[in-house]
Amino acid sequence: MITLYELAGRDPALRFSPYCWRVRMALAHKGLDATTIAWRFHENNSLPGQPATPRVPVLVDDGRVVAESGSIALYLEDRYSHGPSLFGGAGGEAHARFILAWADGILMPAMAPLVAPAVLPVLHPADQAYFRTSREARFGATFEQLDAERSERLHVLRALLTPLRMTLAKQPFLGGDEPSYADYGVFGCFQWARCVGAPPLLAEDDPLTAWIEEMLDLFDGLAGRATVVEPSYQGA
Amino acid sequence: MITLYELAGRDPALRFSPYCWRVRMALAHKGLDATTIAWRFHENNSLPGQPATPRVPVLVDDGRVVAESGSIALYLEDRYSHGPSLFGGAGGEAHARFILAWADGILMPAMAPLVAPAVLPVLHPADQAYFRTSREARFGATFEQLDAERSERLHVLRALLTPLRMTLAKQPFLGGDEPSYADYGVFGCFQWARCVGAPPLLAEDDPLTAWIEEMLDLFDGLAGRATVVEPSYQGA
Repeated sequence: MITLYELAGRDPALRFSPYCWRVRMALAHKGLDATTIAWRFHENNSLPGQPATPRVPVLVDDGRVVAESGSIALYLEDRYSHGPSLFGGAGGEAHARFILAWADGILMPAMAPLVAPAVLPVLHPADQAYFRTSREARFGATFEQLDAERSERLHVLRALLTPLRMTLAKQPFLGGDEPSYADYGVFGCFQWARCVGAPPLLAEDDPLTAWIEEMLDLFDGLAGRATVVEPSYQGA
Repeated sequence: MITLYELAGRDPALRFSPYCWRVRMALAHKGLDATTIAWRFHENNSLPGQPATPRVPVLVDDGRVVAESGSIALYLEDRYSHGPSLFGGAGGEAHARFILAWADGILMPAMAPLVAPAVLPVLHPADQAYFRTSREARFGATFEQLDAERSERLHVLRALLTPLRMTLAKQPFLGGDEPSYADYGVFGCFQWARCVGAPPLLAEDDPLTAWIEEMLDLFDGLAGRATVVEPSYQGA
């Protein structure tokens, strides 16, 4: 019996966290069912394990509490080693660490200023002030400034995606012929933007679109069927 | 009997190509000896296999000709499968492709404008005009302009190294506890800068320095013992 605490919007069915999507995909990869529980930023004290800094995802498996998407993926790989591998062995796991570091250290910092303004209106009202304040401090810019810089930031993001395009020109998934946790790590970021209805991040002819479609179709369309906000964001 | 054609400078002992270093390290990883042959850009027609575009590395193994560092690594992994693995299995190979794409598509384009001006004076005189013309066309800037932009380009390069630092904070090598071809792919770029005596690319307190030292020490100091030009480049 697995329970997953996920970030939710005002609509409790709207689950958009990039890190929670990594875990959702990893669970499906392992063929595991989970009960998901909506959590919002202001529900500080409702997470199991009473972490000092409340953050999702948190996974509870038969009483064991595991926090942070990367740790959860390693836990699932170890605990459910009979299922399809998330990493493809020790070499795959070591090299995946770089891809996840790229996703966290390069992709998210470039993508977040483009997506965060669209996150704001879909949040629970009690989360909005916290979200705006904390993100504006992190980015060193107001959401209105981010919107004004959008075109330039989009240009930078698209250039940073070069290694993703180069890799996926050679193989269907980052994991090779089949998707791995590296795919879920990167895809979660794009699914985040999609779920909150952020304006398009990729040019229409970007070959990455085909890979994203493949990811949306995996596991009987798990990510493709998710609740999303229609793209309607018009500026902060 | 393996032969490796490598780019050389005016001094035939100076072997600085980042792609050739990848192969040198891969051969050592597999415990293979090779005879290396100096090649210069102007020796167009001297490479085995008569490629349309003469480029090194080219490896000849018992009459079989294999060009391009990535193809050579895959060839060695397949042909010498009994030796230590370069990739750590299928998952490792698939994920390594992203790291190599990052090295080729992000790291090299950011590093090359900082290193190329230092390459020029170490080249064979017959190579220098070709090198300057082709590189200035590729960068869209003269070497003198590159030197003037050095500080800003250095800043960008160091920021792009974030995922490398994040990964190596968690494990000794990109390959995990032991180096893999992914390490050689990235290290080759730094060895290139080192061999031609380019001004330092990393800040003195950059934690990547420790990883580079480890790489220089591998295989009885193979890369550390290489002929280098003393850092003396003073501008184009």
